[in-house]
Amino acid sequence: MAGRTTVAAPALAAIDGVMPEWSRRLEERPGPAFVDSCLRGVGQIIFMNNPISGLLILSALWIASGWLGLATTIGVLASTATALLLGLDRSAIRGGLHGFNGALVGAGLATFLAPEFDVGAMVYIVGVAAFSTVLAATLARILVPALGVPPLTLPFNFATLAFLLAAFAFASGDLASTIEPQLPALGAEVETTLQAESDAPGDPGAEGVLNAILRGVAQLFFADSAVAGALILAGILVCSRIAAGFAVVGSVVGLLVALVVGGDGLDAYHGLWGYNSMVTAVAIGGVFYVLSWRSALLAVACAVVAAFLFAAVGTLLAPLGLPALTLPFCLATLAFLILKDEASGLNAVKLEEVTTPEAHRRLARPLPGVTPVGDPGT
Amino acid sequence: MAGRTTVAAPALAAIDGVMPEWSRRLEERPGPAFVDSCLRGVGQIIFMNNPISGLLILSALWIASGWLGLATTIGVLASTATALLLGLDRSAIRGGLHGFNGALVGAGLATFLAPEFDVGAMVYIVGVAAFSTVLAATLARILVPALGVPPLTLPFNFATLAFLLAAFAFASGDLASTIEPQLPALGAEVETTLQAESDAPGDPGAEGVLNAILRGVAQLFFADSAVAGALILAGILVCSRIAAGFAVVGSVVGLLVALVVGGDGLDAYHGLWGYNSMVTAVAIGGVFYVLSWRSALLAVACAVVAAFLFAAVGTLLAPLGLPALTLPFCLATLAFLILKDEASGLNAVKLEEVTTPEAHRRLARPLPGVTPVGDPGT
Amino acid sequence: MAGRTTVAAPALAAIDGVMPEWSRRLEERPGPAFVDSCLRGVGQIIFMNNPISGLLILSALWIASGWLGLATTIGVLASTATALLLGLDRSAIRGGLHGFNGALVGAGLATFLAPEFDVGAMVYIVGVAAFSTVLAATLARILVPALGVPPLTLPFNFATLAFLLAAFAFASGDLASTIEPQLPALGAEVETTLQAESDAPGDPGAEGVLNAILRGVAQLFFADSAVAGALILAGILVCSRIAAGFAVVGSVVGLLVALVVGGDGLDAYHGLWGYNSMVTAVAIGGVFYVLSWRSALLAVACAVVAAFLFAAVGTLLAPLGLPALTLPFCLATLAFLILKDEASGLNAVKLEEVTTPEAHRRLARPLPGVTPVGDPGT
Repeated sequence: MAGRTTVAAPALAAIDGVMPEWSRRLEERPGPAFVDSCLRGVGQIIFMNNPISGLLILSALWIASGWLGLATTIGVLASTATALLLGLDRSAIRGGLHGFNGALVGAGLATFLAPEFDVGAMVYIVGVAAFSTVLAATLARILVPALGVPPLTLPFNFATLAFLLAAFAFASGDLASTIEPQLPALGAEVETTLQAESDAPGDPGAEGVLNAILRGVAQLFFADSAVAGALILAGILVCSRIAAGFAVVGSVVGLLVALVVGGDGLDAYHGLWGYNSMVTAVAIGGVFYVLSWRSALLAVACAVVAAFLFAAVGTLLAPLGLPALTLPFCLATLAFLILKDEASGLNAVKLEEVTTPEAHRRLARPLPGVTPVGDPGT
Repeated sequence: MAGRTTVAAPALAAIDGVMPEWSRRLEERPGPAFVDSCLRGVGQIIFMNNPISGLLILSALWIASGWLGLATTIGVLASTATALLLGLDRSAIRGGLHGFNGALVGAGLATFLAPEFDVGAMVYIVGVAAFSTVLAATLARILVPALGVPPLTLPFNFATLAFLLAAFAFASGDLASTIEPQLPALGAEVETTLQAESDAPGDPGAEGVLNAILRGVAQLFFADSAVAGALILAGILVCSRIAAGFAVVGSVVGLLVALVVGGDGLDAYHGLWGYNSMVTAVAIGGVFYVLSWRSALLAVACAVVAAFLFAAVGTLLAPLGLPALTLPFCLATLAFLILKDEASGLNAVKLEEVTTPEAHRRLARPLPGVTPVGDPGT
Repeated sequence: MAGRTTVAAPALAAIDGVMPEWSRRLEERPGPAFVDSCLRGVGQIIFMNNPISGLLILSALWIASGWLGLATTIGVLASTATALLLGLDRSAIRGGLHGFNGALVGAGLATFLAPEFDVGAMVYIVGVAAFSTVLAATLARILVPALGVPPLTLPFNFATLAFLLAAFAFASGDLASTIEPQLPALGAEVETTLQAESDAPGDPGAEGVLNAILRGVAQLFFADSAVAGALILAGILVCSRIAAGFAVVGSVVGLLVALVVGGDGLDAYHGLWGYNSMVTAVAIGGVFYVLSWRSALLAVACAVVAAFLFAAVGTLLAPLGLPALTLPFCLATLAFLILKDEASGLNAVKLEEVTTPEAHRRLARPLPGVTPVGDPGT
């Protein structure tokens, strides 16, 4: 498919995939290269090493909320700059791999600290984003040589949860009121119909479902907005059609799990059951495994696990009132990824060769006995 | 002893140890081999790679409770089948190494979900058992190459605890009423005399002690029954006399710790202080270390630690109301096993050579300065 | 500096650094060597492989409280003896590396068990200290070959927290009343002025600050005393002036974090915000990195992280009422140490070559582009 695109639309081809030509043009220009690294960092939240994807996603966040957009921007700048100061691997920095954790730190603290546009909060975002870069280097050192898997967004999760835990002890009281420590309740009444507000009538119809799916895409970036979800999907589409497809599949899987087990309908409407399954499906269905029918099924299974883990981490953190963030995604994806060399039926992409799902399919030597999905486009 | 048995009783010799002759006869017959793998999987809960052991243990569970037996059977079938689907190592599957976590998932969910014989619960058992196989492959990939130790029942513990945590969020309310989240209480009144019911008179006599020891064997399999404990001990005896001896020793050690520190007498009577120490003593005393006076002492020390960790994990999980499962066993055994190459006084069995404690003694080259226990039976 | 000392004061030179000449003299005398190992074990709590440092620190503890001194002594004896019984590496034992975790176990249990001078508590200290040696060997086996970092005081933290968790289940009620399980409170009123007692007037003056800094040194050893802090600083000075300097810097950093974020003034006065940052600054600023302006800045940054993690671990353990111990130090230091080979700007000391900050500077080949601090004294 990529091959055909190259012929038909050179302009589109130029922004497709990881845009290597563009990267080469910025090689000698540190300023624009730094901005490009940061934009790729925003895209890498959903594995898209592409500055146009990053720009579209960042725009979606600014549109959803100025404070969310600003905080995410501060976070990606701080963490990328820290990587340069520490002298971490240059090509990893250029590919946005030291930006996405900081971007998420910014988005997360914008959501769980109050009030908005607070200077103190901005200082905290810079500090925690910088620390997320330290954690990223440390966790990569632990995971990559021994297991050949990346730390994903674990640095963001650890740094943000640690900071929110610490903030309980601050006299300034920065924590948002959504953080409510309480023991998990057994047999609590749950309203399972999709609903926009807790006092609104339930909406099991198309609008409710569409909201749940699109917000399931946007909530990975802490944006509670269907419009932002659509714009983010467009950003993913620029870089990879396979990834965009699995993003929708994953969000649908998370929603279905909520409907089947009887999860909270308010949470489901606002995409909270979906976002972990969404990014999990993208990771397994094309990014870290070469797409095949078998890996597609594995992606769906792993997205189901991520939805259950969303509920599990929620209960686990309930006594502290903290959010699950993307821990469910990290745990589910690592559980299904670390076994890659043990399971003869799976065709994993080597970590240093990860680019886009489309490129993986073009370059992969097919496994004996594994049927590729459709035409691999070579 | 094994040598003498071979001469005196060929019929008993045929079912002793890991039954390699029997395995060879099933080589070309996938159906019976699958059943054999599943029975060995039940036996492997207590390290017995022997289908007769598995059959006796499974019978004990069916006798103790039909629902417990059925759920364990579903679990071992689902996890073994998943291993075949994923293409995991064939000889590990044949040895039951991808069955025991699933079997425990079945037994555990039968205990902590309600009501009994529920179709929804059976579906959950299939799913969680399958996920335990994924976790087993992943944890083996993490632990085996780097440290030369197996994941033990960690996959069962992680998968089951994650599912029980998630189930708090389900509208269907499947969790049994034994799950009660509450903060641990300091200085709570504890009734330390062994007692069968919380309102029954204490029984510090032989019957109470015998119940505590046998139920300490049975509770590893979630069976609260002295008869089941006796039948399970018989199952262990078929495969290994040393293992059966350490099972009794471990259960006694756990009970003694409860009596010394003043643990709850109701829990002690029902074998809850014993089952982790029981399986820990078997693991250290013959399975992963070649039996010697030194490793026997180490097994007792590790069983003491497992009993303390049973209390510790209970407090840790109290705010979520969750059971300790076999986490205490896993933590204690790994703590005493990973150091095997650091401590010059210990003679560990290589992981790929683990069979039965008797075979380890026959094959081991003695460490200089370590006195073997009795006649190694060569 | 060490070079000049050698000429001017041979008596001082003899007790400077790791005292290798003294070690050689004890080579053939197991009794004195064992005592020497234990004293070095006390010193190794703050990385000082020097028996005079250990003696001064242990004296400080006995002066602060007889029970604290006795318990620490029992702990270091028990853990060092266990290492000998297990046949662990002899030179590690001689350097005190199997003593410091046990010493801290003794000090910690003296603080969190009641009443004082209890025989049962002494038995528990022997057992938990022995278990900390098992954990030290196991964690070293996990961390050293794969990552080139030591387990620090993780064995002490894990063993002590596990025991305190278990003690909730003991009928004897040994836990001190300072252990109070409760959910963390959001927006609780915090008195941020330094104060000696909760009902005393706040003291923001020099005396309050001096107390906070010196107690920040002493609290690493569970001593709540400015005099003990001064004596411990003297003990560090004997072995390393750089380490003593960073101990003060770290304690100040912890205090400053408390003042800036608005931490509890009673805790800050008693050194609780300081002790983790104190030992963290020593670890990063000279012990595990060769001292340079860059590593000094890194030490300050890591000390800031340790202070935030002190608050974070406090919230995390609040539902169980347990103390943070030195987990914040371990987590912060490992986070900043494991990345050492990833960051081209840092000059780490090889683990097997760790002695004193002064010796590291003399022996280090300077990194290109890294300015050494002052005269390296060669």
